[in-house]
Amino acid sequence: MQTEHTYKQFDAELEAVRAKVLQMGGLVEQQIVNALESLISVNPKLAAEVMETDQRVNALEVQVDEDCSHIIARRQPAASDLRMIMMVVKTITDLERIGDEATKIARVAQKIYESDRMYKPRFNEIKTMVTLVREMLRTALDAFARLDVTRTVEVARQDEQVDEQFRAAMRQLITFMLEDPRTISMSLEVLFVAKAIERIGDHAKNIAEYVVYMVKGKDVRHTSVDEMERETLAP
Amino acid sequence: MQTEHTYKQFDAELEAVRAKVLQMGGLVEQQIVNALESLISVNPKLAAEVMETDQRVNALEVQVDEDCSHIIARRQPAASDLRMIMMVVKTITDLERIGDEATKIARVAQKIYESDRMYKPRFNEIKTMVTLVREMLRTALDAFARLDVTRTVEVARQDEQVDEQFRAAMRQLITFMLEDPRTISMSLEVLFVAKAIERIGDHAKNIAEYVVYMVKGKDVRHTSVDEMERETLAP
Repeated sequence: MQTEHTYKQFDAELEAVRAKVLQMGGLVEQQIVNALESLISVNPKLAAEVMETDQRVNALEVQVDEDCSHIIARRQPAASDLRMIMMVVKTITDLERIGDEATKIARVAQKIYESDRMYKPRFNEIKTMVTLVREMLRTALDAFARLDVTRTVEVARQDEQVDEQFRAAMRQLITFMLEDPRTISMSLEVLFVAKAIERIGDHAKNIAEYVVYMVKGKDVRHTSVDEMERETLAP
Repeated sequence: MQTEHTYKQFDAELEAVRAKVLQMGGLVEQQIVNALESLISVNPKLAAEVMETDQRVNALEVQVDEDCSHIIARRQPAASDLRMIMMVVKTITDLERIGDEATKIARVAQKIYESDRMYKPRFNEIKTMVTLVREMLRTALDAFARLDVTRTVEVARQDEQVDEQFRAAMRQLITFMLEDPRTISMSLEVLFVAKAIERIGDHAKNIAEYVVYMVKGKDVRHTSVDEMERETLAP
């Protein structure tokens, strides 16, 4: 028996869950920014902050998961609301893993701080990559917040750019290593940072794809970017 | 109105979904085995097979997701059944990503085949790692199939071993690269393979944690291995 009252409560509960997802999104974005900064300025305190934030992100994931189960059990939502809840469950997994990747970057920052730092790596390529994945994450979360697929294809296209940037960074690191083999160890650390950022891009793309599924009811996860574009443009 | 008939149907539907998850598990295990073999025997045909299987894995993921949504919408399952369905939704995400990692390994195999192969990498460490993550995946899926948490802690402990093996492999690759910088490019490829296997271990561990949650109702995702052990031993 669904009365107007329970509908309103249901909407409020769904809204609360969506707000928590966006809160998680804000936290992991901050983690990304701080992880990069801790790397560039070799700041172990900031790196520690990234790891602390990760615990809040993890706690939020567990909480939202429980909220979603409760809502389903109590409200027995219909097709479109259920789709939304299932996508929330998937989105928070990707957000939590973005937090993990940021934490890995922060760990590299700590390692660099603790090392003798004979060879101080430069992070120009890393900075460019971070700018891009941050934008992807924002666009994906904005699409999630407004249930608007318009810019989701951008995220998928930017993911291809990030992959290209990763390959370019790798080529450059190989050059460094060949020129001066003493840089090999540190170059590998930088490579892992680049890999972590590339993965953050993957997760942002996943979130964008969930939004398309939520809004259009069409699963675009394992399709090409062009197909995804057709779906988002379909009425 | 739940009659005995609908209960039976519900059980059958749940069982069908669980069977599909195990089918996905079998496919990704085969992908891991074939990816390793394609690498060792430099077999591009086998590598292509890994990629083809990935499409079946992806299709199964989409299908199981839909099945789960349908079951929830039609059957309005109670707490423990709902918990099971939510965990299925999470499990298939990890299985699908194991497939992605195996595909990445297969791509390296193709690259090695296409390269001039001046330096032929050895894969001893990789083999040991694969043996371990395969065992982890099997144990996790077996726990899922039998809803038995007894051996889930093993998976978490083995994940720590895999991480240690990864670090050892990395140290060895650094030694190779220092001894002969011409091996740098190829060594990085091997490093990415090791990274992919390490990630497969992470995903297997995730699945084991979901089983604990399914059976015990306790979320052990962001806890230590010791805490996880206490939970699985609790009556």
